[in-house]
Amino acid sequence: MIQLYQFALSPFCRKVRLVLAEKKLDVQLVDEKYWEDNQDFKRRNPAGKVPVLRMDGLTLCESQAICEYIEETHPEPALIPNNPAARAEVRRIVSWFDDKFHHEVTSKLVYERVNKKLTRSGYPDGRNVKEGSKAIKFHLDYMGWLLDQRRWLAGSELTMADFAAAAHLSCLDYISDVDWDRNRQVREWYAKIKSRPAFRSILADQVSGFPPPRHYADLDF
Amino acid sequence: MIQLYQFALSPFCRKVRLVLAEKKLDVQLVDEKYWEDNQDFKRRNPAGKVPVLRMDGLTLCESQAICEYIEETHPEPALIPNNPAARAEVRRIVSWFDDKFHHEVTSKLVYERVNKKLTRSGYPDGRNVKEGSKAIKFHLDYMGWLLDQRRWLAGSELTMADFAAAAHLSCLDYISDVDWDRNRQVREWYAKIKSRPAFRSILADQVSGFPPPRHYADLDF
Repeated sequence: MIQLYQFALSPFCRKVRLVLAEKKLDVQLVDEKYWEDNQDFKRRNPAGKVPVLRMDGLTLCESQAICEYIEETHPEPALIPNNPAARAEVRRIVSWFDDKFHHEVTSKLVYERVNKKLTRSGYPDGRNVKEGSKAIKFHLDYMGWLLDQRRWLAGSELTMADFAAAAHLSCLDYISDVDWDRNRQVREWYAKIKSRPAFRSILADQVSGFPPPRHYADLDF
Repeated sequence: MIQLYQFALSPFCRKVRLVLAEKKLDVQLVDEKYWEDNQDFKRRNPAGKVPVLRMDGLTLCESQAICEYIEETHPEPALIPNNPAARAEVRRIVSWFDDKFHHEVTSKLVYERVNKKLTRSGYPDGRNVKEGSKAIKFHLDYMGWLLDQRRWLAGSELTMADFAAAAHLSCLDYISDVDWDRNRQVREWYAKIKSRPAFRSILADQVSGFPPPRHYADLDF
């Protein structure tokens, strides 16, 4: 059985879960309080971060290394296309979300509003929240610009880039931080991806002390 | 001709340069003041970051997407092995340096001491410098632990993981922030990688206003 050590509102864990689910690989989720000083967990990943995936007798760390491993060992359905230029575009957009979007938006909203309380490391920093709320508009506009020209974020097919983006946006949607009225294309894109069977487990997530808003799991939001 | 829009002390640009050089691909370096509001550059990469690579008629962004593209289109010599588990380990260590090491060390030392001055965005924050100087010790120890068991960072062969690590450490060495006496294995590893022809252009780098220390380019440091 594949096991994923995870935190429900980690976009990196959600990306791995979406990739596993799209490939119809069953996984046992193990909630990991990675912020506590747990030596067992540190042995699994000295970086002290989730996700950590146990699969094929291996302990895999770092979300993109994990997703590429899953893609290489379970190539169907393909979430990274064959052509090198198209692969580079998928990976560019994955990095856009996991690096730039994470730094400018997810860390400033989800981490301030949720992780800080869970880990008892203080109150939300209003300046960060303000910066994150401003930055997400630029990112939604950029997504809209991409979706003006393409069916999915990296081209005509659904790829890992869409799951990376949806992983971040779904965490923000859990705390009602996405203005779905800002861009029609982005809303339609999210409605499509949200209605995939792979998304079901994400929509059923519950973080103790932070009940999701009603629209979070609603396919007709 | 391949063109790399870059900043000499960016570890991400250095990783790309090392991968290109190891594969004997000539590149024209274009210094890019990415912090200035340059619309031409923003069109090439809306993320506003270096590296940006022009190659095969494509404009490629995000260092790991670029390196994977080079590896896929120029597979020899291989910098990512064939076996999926070994590939995952290479990518784990690349992410370790490009994410964790960058966040805990490079951004706290190189960015505070160099980038802030170059971009006229204030003085080094002493708390960050102190945190970075402390964190690098843990990372050097972790590298030493890996090199206790392996010839190179991700296994018995030189891989992209070594270049990712060397890209960060060489930036820190440029500002004399690496204690090479801390771990003998790490010093020997760096001596080996530093003496490769692929490293020559990195050792010749000069950043205006920040002359490198004498030991920086010395193969017998």
